[in-house]
Amino acid sequence: MSTEKAAFTRPAARLTHAGALVALNAAVAKAEAMGVPQNISIVDEGGNLLAFVRMDGAKLLSRETSLSKAISAASHRQPTSRLDPALELKLAIAAGGRLTNLEGGFPIILDGVCVCGIGVGSGKGAEDVEVAKAALAAIGAEV
Amino acid sequence: MSTEKAAFTRPAARLTHAGALVALNAAVAKAEAMGVPQNISIVDEGGNLLAFVRMDGAKLLSRETSLSKAISAASHRQPTSRLDPALELKLAIAAGGRLTNLEGGFPIILDGVCVCGIGVGSGKGAEDVEVAKAALAAIGAEV
Amino acid sequence: MSTEKAAFTRPAARLTHAGALVALNAAVAKAEAMGVPQNISIVDEGGNLLAFVRMDGAKLLSRETSLSKAISAASHRQPTSRLDPALELKLAIAAGGRLTNLEGGFPIILDGVCVCGIGVGSGKGAEDVEVAKAALAAIGAEV
Amino acid sequence: MSTEKAAFTRPAARLTHAGALVALNAAVAKAEAMGVPQNISIVDEGGNLLAFVRMDGAKLLSRETSLSKAISAASHRQPTSRLDPALELKLAIAAGGRLTNLEGGFPIILDGVCVCGIGVGSGKGAEDVEVAKAALAAIGAEV
Repeated sequence: MSTEKAAFTRPAARLTHAGALVALNAAVAKAEAMGVPQNISIVDEGGNLLAFVRMDGAKLLSRETSLSKAISAASHRQPTSRLDPALELKLAIAAGGRLTNLEGGFPIILDGVCVCGIGVGSGKGAEDVEVAKAALAAIGAEV
Repeated sequence: MSTEKAAFTRPAARLTHAGALVALNAAVAKAEAMGVPQNISIVDEGGNLLAFVRMDGAKLLSRETSLSKAISAASHRQPTSRLDPALELKLAIAAGGRLTNLEGGFPIILDGVCVCGIGVGSGKGAEDVEVAKAALAAIGAEV
Repeated sequence: MSTEKAAFTRPAARLTHAGALVALNAAVAKAEAMGVPQNISIVDEGGNLLAFVRMDGAKLLSRETSLSKAISAASHRQPTSRLDPALELKLAIAAGGRLTNLEGGFPIILDGVCVCGIGVGSGKGAEDVEVAKAALAAIGAEV
Repeated sequence: MSTEKAAFTRPAARLTHAGALVALNAAVAKAEAMGVPQNISIVDEGGNLLAFVRMDGAKLLSRETSLSKAISAASHRQPTSRLDPALELKLAIAAGGRLTNLEGGFPIILDGVCVCGIGVGSGKGAEDVEVAKAALAAIGAEV
């Protein structure tokens, strides 16, 4: 690759579907063990869905909150809970509705690179966090 | 339940998330064996997503076509390919964009009851059909 | 990186903003030389806008067609003109409106890797193609 | 033009694409110097995108906030920060989601005429403001 061309791209990494399914299954197993049905969304860096499951009894609309959490975490490369509460509503509106600081969204960071985001929704905040962390642990992602 | 009240409900069945994940994994295994990356969507009777995966290299926009196929099949309780070609465009538009007769969508019928739909998209039509059928077979659904 | 973790990611490449601006400026220069004002959209692999310009006198709604062309090319990793005409309308509807085979959309392929897509719209089809190709040439992308 | 007809029009001015690109490049250069990747949106008086770039590492969802800032500034012909905080949420909702007082949006005023708006988003508020002002300065717009 010539020097000129090299400046036009930058290396990146993407989560494989194998990795996404391992994370998804670990989240399901954790939620089953807790007895808390969940919606689990995993999105890539562009906010596009990679893997999803709605568990028996999980709340219908929490599909959307789990997705917003996943997109927010992937976009900002930090847990959703870090977004400034003083700005949360106006940021959410200005960003078109997807930006949230609801607990349960985490970036998926492998070897220091954010490859995507996961969002869990239907339980209480702390339950959503616990399920998301089980998914991160299963693929060796930073928690 | 009293006799009167009984008249106010009818029995139904829903696909469990365990069943959805078995179908999803079978579809992924088949697509991997074929060397054709796919988007696989499974929706419930309400057209709401139950399980999804986008495989490495699957086309981005085929996420939407796989979802349209799944919703169409669940809605009409028949394979997408049965929709009358002479009406396909006006039906699609009048139904809000989700109704399609693209190949690759099937109802999931267990014990004679349609519990949901599956849609596969990113390959050629016949490839999408083959992957969807592998998912149906894995959970003993009618093909 | 452990063997297990390695299986959870796959290497990718992204267009830099420097590269996107070189492509954008080359497209503008070409369109100015042709006397054909254009809308030029460059999107990443996730279909998200990376760079855009609407030239003086370019058609307002062609912003949307240029975007659809760019997203379609990035999604399918091929020029928009390759989409099967026999399926074009039903694919467009089933994919949510963004999938098009209008001329003027190209994947941006550098060193064999599709990093994103470009779409040009406001001129005639052949003019849109010519402007898009000037952008590709400026960054050494495959044409 | 007859005297009567003259009463039916009023003079206006629009930013050229050449001007938009000068502003965009100046904003990118400033953001690079600061080490803060940004989304930069420039919209015309109709709130329609004229020029845009997402820099390497800029937050995905800040594309939308940068656009909301640009549209708000162009609409109200004043910096976004001037909107009354006591009304910010109900104004944002009633205006369909695009009206915001997040810092980083400015009208582009040339020779006393507001020709369009610019919005910058992904950094902290003060950083977004600094980058937007660099764009204004580059084309001699009022700050």
